[in-house]
Amino acid sequence: MRLKLTIAYDGANYAGWQIQKIGLGVQQIVEEAIAKIFQQQIRIHGSSRTDTGVHARAMIAHFDLPEDRLRMPMNKVALALNAQLPEDIRVMEAREAAEDFHARFDAKGKQYRYFVYNHPAMDPLLRRQAWHVPQKLDLAAIRKAATYFKGKQDFAAFANNRNYAMETTVRTLFRCELKKAGPILTFIIEGDGFLYKMCRGIVGTLIQCGAGKFPPTDIAKMLAAKDRRMAGMTAPAHGLVLWKVFYES
Amino acid sequence: MRLKLTIAYDGANYAGWQIQKIGLGVQQIVEEAIAKIFQQQIRIHGSSRTDTGVHARAMIAHFDLPEDRLRMPMNKVALALNAQLPEDIRVMEAREAAEDFHARFDAKGKQYRYFVYNHPAMDPLLRRQAWHVPQKLDLAAIRKAATYFKGKQDFAAFANNRNYAMETTVRTLFRCELKKAGPILTFIIEGDGFLYKMCRGIVGTLIQCGAGKFPPTDIAKMLAAKDRRMAGMTAPAHGLVLWKVFYES
Repeated sequence: MRLKLTIAYDGANYAGWQIQKIGLGVQQIVEEAIAKIFQQQIRIHGSSRTDTGVHARAMIAHFDLPEDRLRMPMNKVALALNAQLPEDIRVMEAREAAEDFHARFDAKGKQYRYFVYNHPAMDPLLRRQAWHVPQKLDLAAIRKAATYFKGKQDFAAFANNRNYAMETTVRTLFRCELKKAGPILTFIIEGDGFLYKMCRGIVGTLIQCGAGKFPPTDIAKMLAAKDRRMAGMTAPAHGLVLWKVFYES
Repeated sequence: MRLKLTIAYDGANYAGWQIQKIGLGVQQIVEEAIAKIFQQQIRIHGSSRTDTGVHARAMIAHFDLPEDRLRMPMNKVALALNAQLPEDIRVMEAREAAEDFHARFDAKGKQYRYFVYNHPAMDPLLRRQAWHVPQKLDLAAIRKAATYFKGKQDFAAFANNRNYAMETTVRTLFRCELKKAGPILTFIIEGDGFLYKMCRGIVGTLIQCGAGKFPPTDIAKMLAAKDRRMAGMTAPAHGLVLWKVFYES
């Protein structure tokens, strides 16, 4: 039988989702908990790779469990796994999925949220989950700049140092919005897929735009250049959260 | 000249605001930063005492500085203090106050917020700042129960083990409300003053009411009994934030 997990984690102590040669991946910790509970080594498949230090509110993962290994009602699986997991990783939900469900290949889109605290002094309660930007920002400029990211485009200029010779760097963004609640700025970025560090490149560039480093119209030039050196900075990892993964129905 | 500070802190590492015989108070850390910046030992006066582990978004404090010690524009004071403070304590604002302003005696009221995460599994990103309550709650019962706390009452049953023989335990609550945003429950409690652990006693009792341990009407009986043993549990410290202090403008 195939199980689908919704996993939340505080990324601070992990080298991202994926099993790494250097550093601990969240995937590995979850696989160890599964091995303990079900007495079997099982590979799990996540919907997304998150980078070192990036958080998740709803990473989706699936794995196959021999029917006779379950030995508990389905509504106890999350509880049992959480009893084995460290408190910075939680299984928020566990349920049976269709036999052909695939967390990664079936994903129709993903939503990331990036949090910025825009005030001269950082709120100590948000310091682990928001990027502190002390300078005054032109939010109208940021909102204008954000519109350039929407739609189907080549995001090569917003992906870091990877060999994309063999694969496309074209992605479609459905949303790229800024919401403001007092000093808290939330970037909501939704798309059919994301390149390595793409969200952080977009947010870093938007913030620099808001700080007056370049005008919103430069975003079009950056996208056209398809060269990472032409775009803005990469925002730090600890402000980013994998918020939601979309599947059909 | 008198200065007014707005101070935010993550209470996890401190034995509350006040200077303590055992454990470190936030006040002491701020006084040490002031001594370094202004080269003089100065006592500061906070608006409220917070307990061990309780957070603040806007603790107000005042202190007197000999005019010739300032040596920087007022808008640089917060920055200078923050450079000396650990990252879990921040001066969000520093400004000159009236010579007779008193952070504690002039306070007309205070607002506390208490955060509860109500889902079988705890959100790892909120684990340091919200109380995890996994069981299903009757929110209508909680809201009904909360209305009994409003107004001028004797809160002796909701204050912990202190000798109140010499002082009144009568306080007035202006607000005692529950807001819900998905699994996040926020209690907003506003009043002219608070007894020791009073907010946490109110929230603990309300949650037990929501869990069906007693009906909302019991709150009236608890208040009338004026006996701590008749009320409900004390909610844990890490969910509570001193949110706002009110002064006559």
